[in-house]
Amino acid sequence: MDNEPITSIHNPRVKALAKLRKRSERDEQGVFMTEGYRPITRALAAGFHFDEIYYSPEWFLGSNEQKVLDDAAKAGAQLTRLGKEAFAKIAYRERPEGLIGIGKQWHTSLDDLKLSKTPFLIVVEAIEKPGNLGTILRSADATGAEAVIVCDAVTDLFNPNVVRASTGVMFTTPTVITDSASAIDFLRTHKIRSLAATPAAKELYTDVDLKQPVAIVMGSEQFGLTDTWLESCDLPVRLPMAGIADSLNVSAATVAIAYEVVRQRNAK
Amino acid sequence: MDNEPITSIHNPRVKALAKLRKRSERDEQGVFMTEGYRPITRALAAGFHFDEIYYSPEWFLGSNEQKVLDDAAKAGAQLTRLGKEAFAKIAYRERPEGLIGIGKQWHTSLDDLKLSKTPFLIVVEAIEKPGNLGTILRSADATGAEAVIVCDAVTDLFNPNVVRASTGVMFTTPTVITDSASAIDFLRTHKIRSLAATPAAKELYTDVDLKQPVAIVMGSEQFGLTDTWLESCDLPVRLPMAGIADSLNVSAATVAIAYEVVRQRNAK
Repeated sequence: MDNEPITSIHNPRVKALAKLRKRSERDEQGVFMTEGYRPITRALAAGFHFDEIYYSPEWFLGSNEQKVLDDAAKAGAQLTRLGKEAFAKIAYRERPEGLIGIGKQWHTSLDDLKLSKTPFLIVVEAIEKPGNLGTILRSADATGAEAVIVCDAVTDLFNPNVVRASTGVMFTTPTVITDSASAIDFLRTHKIRSLAATPAAKELYTDVDLKQPVAIVMGSEQFGLTDTWLESCDLPVRLPMAGIADSLNVSAATVAIAYEVVRQRNAK
Repeated sequence: MDNEPITSIHNPRVKALAKLRKRSERDEQGVFMTEGYRPITRALAAGFHFDEIYYSPEWFLGSNEQKVLDDAAKAGAQLTRLGKEAFAKIAYRERPEGLIGIGKQWHTSLDDLKLSKTPFLIVVEAIEKPGNLGTILRSADATGAEAVIVCDAVTDLFNPNVVRASTGVMFTTPTVITDSASAIDFLRTHKIRSLAATPAAKELYTDVDLKQPVAIVMGSEQFGLTDTWLESCDLPVRLPMAGIADSLNVSAATVAIAYEVVRQRNAK
């Protein structure tokens, strides 16, 4: 750990790491970057093994970073120290925290999911913004959704901004990348009712029984759900819209409904 | 409207407009930019007067833009056509929609607010990310919050990304920029109970009576609420957190609680 740090931003390894911001590069190498104290800590706690950790004490914000490095090393990660500038070159946060982990991508399939007796899932279709997908993962973790099924993905799960916005819960929230037809099949096979928020629905989401096996299905930011989902949906519902707008941000609508699932399921 | 368009990106007017991305420039001139079809349409519908509209048909996405231009002109806006590149220079969206409005900033004070008999407000403290403030405004509109009180603002209301994320509801949702002490005073004077989400609270937000006059108070992304608010808070509550994380995204937590207010108030 006290080896000479890599200080040059032209170092080939630094250049190769900076390229991981590109999806094609990540997918080709089958790896991704996790940046920051909280996501890396959560990943390690979840038993995730980083192949490499790059660190730069000049950027550390707290005093517990050394423990993170020790834990990662114990779990088999190779540690490499970078100079301040070289670290900034590979970081994607505006204010880097001096910790970046490189680990292998993984893939969870629908068949991998272990469902409870009364499943509660979140399904998203063609989400475009990494920040929204990350926030939805965070809401899934908070509300105890058993899995997030990402259909016809536009943003990839291993986009650094998904990892960041998820604050590391992606390491524990089972997330499946698939297509809509497979997801619809899966829900039917497992008798999980699909609930879709659409302004045209008559029933309020709060008037529907959410204690039954249910999947909240949400569409893309720009276009909402496609007809594929709207036509196959078991429970069309609407959220009350009191103002001038006819829709909410997709992650806001998701969390509002997800917490209604929690409320109904926890009610005495 | 059929004058020669401004095509040079070096045109002094184009350069001056591009500068409006900077807060200091906006504040000095007392103006701000609204970009895109939906926010501009909503602004006009709300009776907002743009001083100027810049447009570039090369970027138009739909076929109703001419009507927006006509409406804006009727309401007194001066229309200026820009070339494709010149427009891209002043736009802040990745995919511009060919419409940008320049209008005067306004300021709503606590005394300006017209409260109902049982007010429902949203208060945010030191929010940092424009996207979060915009999303909270959108949730306020959807849930019928009477006003949003922004305390100790880090991001300014007229930041282009707040305007964008709010999808134009900022033109109809009364929003007050003030300091925490004034907001706390205001709530006390009007007997509005402050509800703060904090992991340390015993009571669930769903177990509290939200039909009473209430203000949801949310802290900053990084630090949560300061002691000023936590100590003065009438109703400390918590959201169930089922997973590994101990907090939600601030706009997610806000909308979850706001929709519980709606649910309780609409319940028979």
